[in-house]
Amino acid sequence: MSITKNEIKLIRALQQKKVRNQEQLFIVEGIKGVREFLNSHFELYKLFSTESIFDIDTTLISEQDLQKISALKSPNTTLAIFRKPMEQPIRESGLLIALDDVRDPGNLGTIIRLCDWYGIEHLICSLETVDCYNSKVVQATMGSLTRVYVHYINLGDFLKQTKLNVFGTFMNGDNIYSETLPNEGVIIMGNEANGISPNIELLVDKRIGIPRFGKLKAIESLNVATATAIILSAFKMK
Amino acid sequence: MSITKNEIKLIRALQQKKVRNQEQLFIVEGIKGVREFLNSHFELYKLFSTESIFDIDTTLISEQDLQKISALKSPNTTLAIFRKPMEQPIRESGLLIALDDVRDPGNLGTIIRLCDWYGIEHLICSLETVDCYNSKVVQATMGSLTRVYVHYINLGDFLKQTKLNVFGTFMNGDNIYSETLPNEGVIIMGNEANGISPNIELLVDKRIGIPRFGKLKAIESLNVATATAIILSAFKMK
Repeated sequence: MSITKNEIKLIRALQQKKVRNQEQLFIVEGIKGVREFLNSHFELYKLFSTESIFDIDTTLISEQDLQKISALKSPNTTLAIFRKPMEQPIRESGLLIALDDVRDPGNLGTIIRLCDWYGIEHLICSLETVDCYNSKVVQATMGSLTRVYVHYINLGDFLKQTKLNVFGTFMNGDNIYSETLPNEGVIIMGNEANGISPNIELLVDKRIGIPRFGKLKAIESLNVATATAIILSAFKMK
Repeated sequence: MSITKNEIKLIRALQQKKVRNQEQLFIVEGIKGVREFLNSHFELYKLFSTESIFDIDTTLISEQDLQKISALKSPNTTLAIFRKPMEQPIRESGLLIALDDVRDPGNLGTIIRLCDWYGIEHLICSLETVDCYNSKVVQATMGSLTRVYVHYINLGDFLKQTKLNVFGTFMNGDNIYSETLPNEGVIIMGNEANGISPNIELLVDKRIGIPRFGKLKAIESLNVATATAIILSAFKMK
């Protein structure tokens, strides 16, 4: 049993967010990544590999077919289609991260890894934030996506109803190094170019920021993934 | 006066590290980046632009010529050749970061920005670390390269002679959140895949690490640029 034309068509189409939403499917590439998803709560839809490595139903394909369906320059043996998980309720306790229109797949991937590292199980994304089932994001998370629940919601509506304290990160926010930071709250990180949007800013209870130690002429801002690392670390450091 | 064939050839050749070292030149692209380098200690060699935006000698070129010489998908008006700076002595005081074979241009770029932010003026790179005049690194630093001195040296030799305390970051190092971290020292960050190499590990005085807060199954490691952000922040936080 080899790969069918329809399967090739489906896999290619799953590069589009619209199709991923319609079909409720997404792609994972590479042995290591696929193994992480197989060992998780995610449900496999279809597995393609150039070798029989896994103890489950595998469609064996040629290197050429793998080249055809892979989005990577050097595809790594295996490509799998998984089902997108059922939506989970957001657990509004402890620390949550909320992203206000983060657009870069690499940044989202790094932030999901950071959530995993720091035990943040729920990541909230505005509807304009890049899709976490984008193949570049899946690749960048190195399996962390199996342990962090990513929710796409109207961020303003969520913040209006939450009882948690809302922290917003701004260039001129209060110095995270001299504040006493709690174990609970929502921390909002803004868009790469524009920061937190004005309508979300109105819903912030507490403005925080990372102080700059460099010379006067030093760089204007940090990358959002780097800033998330520093902020999360400051909240967890005690 | 338009761009010559030899100039096109030179610019393309400067994508190679070997040629950058021979000619002691490198490329900066985009108006914002070029402006930062013009306003710095770096010396301009030649400026090409599709518009006369700068108050200095500019070779006006067509959009097509810009496409030919640019390494970017969407080139941004201006491309300049700068001279690599004279080597500076390393100032062995305060905090220094040392990279043991960091290979990814994006990671090096992010780390240079972090040094700029936290006022670390000297960044030490092992000879195998990616070249900071690689155009992807220059692009990623967003001008921070004009304020951070990057030194390529034999890292082992440097560490053997330094009087500074040498901190090495390891998965199982002592918890940075419970250690008292000094204002002086060299902090070594390791290679993306292999961490700190065995011969460098022997020269480490103090092993430090970022504790993991996630579940047992959580991710194995953080990206080196993210880890540098967290470690630098911990040293500066007091």
